[in-house]
Amino acid sequence: MRVAYNEQMTELADSLGEMAGLAGAAMERATQSLLQADLTLAEQVIGEHDKITELSALCEERAFALLALQAPVAGDLRSVVSGIQIVADIDRMGALALHVAKIARRRHPNHVLPEEVNGYFAEMGRIAVSIGAAAKEVLETRDPERAARLREEDEAMDDLHRHLFNVQMDREWKHGVAAAVDITLLGRFYERFADHAVEVGRRVIFLVTGQLPAEDGSVTAKRADDLTTYPE
Amino acid sequence: MRVAYNEQMTELADSLGEMAGLAGAAMERATQSLLQADLTLAEQVIGEHDKITELSALCEERAFALLALQAPVAGDLRSVVSGIQIVADIDRMGALALHVAKIARRRHPNHVLPEEVNGYFAEMGRIAVSIGAAAKEVLETRDPERAARLREEDEAMDDLHRHLFNVQMDREWKHGVAAAVDITLLGRFYERFADHAVEVGRRVIFLVTGQLPAEDGSVTAKRADDLTTYPE
Repeated sequence: MRVAYNEQMTELADSLGEMAGLAGAAMERATQSLLQADLTLAEQVIGEHDKITELSALCEERAFALLALQAPVAGDLRSVVSGIQIVADIDRMGALALHVAKIARRRHPNHVLPEEVNGYFAEMGRIAVSIGAAAKEVLETRDPERAARLREEDEAMDDLHRHLFNVQMDREWKHGVAAAVDITLLGRFYERFADHAVEVGRRVIFLVTGQLPAEDGSVTAKRADDLTTYPE
Repeated sequence: MRVAYNEQMTELADSLGEMAGLAGAAMERATQSLLQADLTLAEQVIGEHDKITELSALCEERAFALLALQAPVAGDLRSVVSGIQIVADIDRMGALALHVAKIARRRHPNHVLPEEVNGYFAEMGRIAVSIGAAAKEVLETRDPERAARLREEDEAMDDLHRHLFNVQMDREWKHGVAAAVDITLLGRFYERFADHAVEVGRRVIFLVTGQLPAEDGSVTAKRADDLTTYPE
């Protein structure tokens, strides 16, 4: 019974790490498909998205079964409850990568991005992949210090996001409204991807320490500020 | 003990319903502030947002305490686990209303919306308030049929969202890129608000029936489609 229990706890943790890996890989390919108008990569992200949603359902089932059959306590209970919350964040990360790939596919063979903003998305993509890998690492190592540092990468993403708005608001913008709409959505998708990775880190800090970082209340507000303080 | 237990289950359910009510009220005021460039209403939404994040933390604590101290089983366990997932959706609904209010405040005394798209946001706001009230009702009545019907209202929202893209993509669009960026974000916020309400409905169906609607896997994909099938 204990063995089965420990195996079940390990399976849940492994599935979450695997999901984070898939979401990060999806965003990496989606970014390449966006930057290079690579239809094959976009189709791969879209075709493989079901793997993430299936793992998401599997994680929820495993967490529920643990609560129902094993009634874990203390740190184990925090792990399972956090797991239920983390799976929702990783599921969204996968969905956001899917959104990016679908925009790349829709515009193919054209490039979605004007040359002028390519560099922003190359860097936002790099940060997204890095923060996704960090979220996976944090799920595996449960290192609260590393988890707390996810916020720094998120701040770099938010800075880029604000600069991107700057570029679009510039009177010199010559790429029209359709490109602006795509870029606005894409910028939002990358920013949210990083937000969800930070949230995974917060949940890991809770499951390790029993304390949810103060951001619990202010995360929402902070995100709103990140989003809405882009230069006029 | 049983009494305390039943009281705790009721408190959790009541807090979730209260949160849904606050998120719906916030979106109603945020929409008014957007349509009428009403700074007072925008400030009210922004100032009262902490109530939602505080209730969100309270709901999580109550759910965790129930699991830790009462080890609920069967339907009660589904209620608590679903509650943990539902609180995250309602928290996001509140954050999306906050985003709308902040955009209205940023542009004040100017109107964010060109006359041409006012009607779209009046209707998206009406649907958001209606679907938010329906989510609250479903949390209180736990009526799975009503919960399933949330999807119909979401489809009306998605249709409006697509039409809004149409209007922006029109060659006749004369309102510039800054307005297009605001409108793209606002449209996304209303669409996501409704998505989260549908997700609340799905979780209520699970807690009542023990079956998560088939959308579990396809919701993400469906959302991606909603978002990305807007006319070119």
